[in-house]
Amino acid sequence: VSALDLTESERRMREESDDALTDRVVKSFAGASSPRERAVLESLVRHLHGFIREATLTDDEWRAGIDFLTRTGHTTNECRQEFILLSDILGASMLTVRVNQTEDPAATDSTVFGPFYLSASPGIELGDALAQGAPGRPLFVRGTVCGPSGEPISGARLEVWGADEEGLYDVQHEGQRVANRGHLFADDSGNFTFWSIHPVAYSIPADGPVGELLRSAERSPMRPAHLHFVVSARGWRTLVTHLFVAGDRYLGSDAEFGVVDSLVVPFVEHPATEPPPGRHVDGPWSSVAYDFVLAPSADGLETAFGKLPTPL
Amino acid sequence: VSALDLTESERRMREESDDALTDRVVKSFAGASSPRERAVLESLVRHLHGFIREATLTDDEWRAGIDFLTRTGHTTNECRQEFILLSDILGASMLTVRVNQTEDPAATDSTVFGPFYLSASPGIELGDALAQGAPGRPLFVRGTVCGPSGEPISGARLEVWGADEEGLYDVQHEGQRVANRGHLFADDSGNFTFWSIHPVAYSIPADGPVGELLRSAERSPMRPAHLHFVVSARGWRTLVTHLFVAGDRYLGSDAEFGVVDSLVVPFVEHPATEPPPGRHVDGPWSSVAYDFVLAPSADGLETAFGKLPTPL
Repeated sequence: VSALDLTESERRMREESDDALTDRVVKSFAGASSPRERAVLESLVRHLHGFIREATLTDDEWRAGIDFLTRTGHTTNECRQEFILLSDILGASMLTVRVNQTEDPAATDSTVFGPFYLSASPGIELGDALAQGAPGRPLFVRGTVCGPSGEPISGARLEVWGADEEGLYDVQHEGQRVANRGHLFADDSGNFTFWSIHPVAYSIPADGPVGELLRSAERSPMRPAHLHFVVSARGWRTLVTHLFVAGDRYLGSDAEFGVVDSLVVPFVEHPATEPPPGRHVDGPWSSVAYDFVLAPSADGLETAFGKLPTPL
Repeated sequence: VSALDLTESERRMREESDDALTDRVVKSFAGASSPRERAVLESLVRHLHGFIREATLTDDEWRAGIDFLTRTGHTTNECRQEFILLSDILGASMLTVRVNQTEDPAATDSTVFGPFYLSASPGIELGDALAQGAPGRPLFVRGTVCGPSGEPISGARLEVWGADEEGLYDVQHEGQRVANRGHLFADDSGNFTFWSIHPVAYSIPADGPVGELLRSAERSPMRPAHLHFVVSARGWRTLVTHLFVAGDRYLGSDAEFGVVDSLVVPFVEHPATEPPPGRHVDGPWSSVAYDFVLAPSADGLETAFGKLPTPL
């Protein structure tokens, strides 16, 4: 029965007793292990109940939701994180990024983490290549890592991962190869250089429940071309971000709502006739330069590695 | 950074642009396949974002949430529905039941569906036993299925399932046995009788993510003793409900918030010396009588079986 079929007084009585149910559920979490856990659970319960009540969710829709979450869980494995993808396409990931953004106006903006991070990646030396045979136009990346006043952050760690020219990450290919993914450390002056692959726009994995939801809403699964970074150093806030390729046609319609203007930068294309720095490449190549600015850690104790995501 | 560390104007600017993100996500679902799907998704996005914003969800909490949902998915299989359990202990299942309750005051109240329904169950004849060797005190169940004016509903279908005296459902035991679960049809006068097992209070499965959440909040995992029913007939609204055992000590603290006063009924205990109707039993037995009152289907077309949950 829709809420509209009830008389005014029936409706009021029902709402009062639905509110009492919500209050009972909130109260059941009174013994939570910390005031913070209790506050988060209370907010979660009130908004979840608010949704069910506002939408007058039907039994069939509830079952469809249970089924959707079940299939999302069964699609998630060591190489694919369908719940992160779901959070991304609902804008929940980007909103979480925004509410946690540092207040330092000089710091580099953050964006979404995405579903393709792996906790273990190979280390490379400065100037070396990440690609490990992944196909695509070579991309030379250089820059510095510094604090808000331009002070170099010696030995900052950069974790980098990106898709190949087919728009696929290593974990999306058959087999266990690791490619176009790795970490390196800036030098004493905070400078870094390495080789990757020129990013292309790609479709997020669309053969699971998230793809089904996007199709049902006639939403595009495309992400604009980008390269992923986690930049970290002891005593500084860990930065999770991308660099986006200026001019990409999907910058205005990212399926994950991750585009921030300050992260859209020129990726310069160089002809085969122009020799690249410190390496021989066949054919054309690209380059991008970016200086990452970290904000000081609030408590001075935050370490880079302690804050890195743990394997799921 | 907490919202409290910002100046008033910084806070306002940030909120405005967070709202703009929410609006963009809502707009992305404008092409949903029906106005209803669009309305449900809009409500879902606004409440999900409202939660993240109100709680100022941290990156670590977001990751903990992704990890929790992932483990909930991996705990769910053909015999165990951890997402239903999660919905149950958050009161989301009971609230969905309530917003869909028929307005007919004579109709039997609904309650939660629970995680242990199976779409296929053995059929039994009137008067037969469901238990199939499941241990517990024999329980004689009788009643009628009728409409709001007492008109019998000939041939109504009753789907019944319950735990054994250890507090476990068949699917929680090793192996594939089906026990204390089945369906039967009322006779021409809407009457039914069958044998089951006297229900006992039990702990919901506490060895998965849901159990972990309950422990963290020092919440009891206990449910008061009950027997599950889905009662259905062509032209009538399908009723999903329990009968609860009067006097159970957990009636006031059901982990799933499913108790409704009208569903708490006396389960009468009979000594071994009192012969039960139509069957020989060794030792003491119990009995319960209940008349299920269905509401007419709103559109006259709703069929029982079409509305039964499909297998997950």
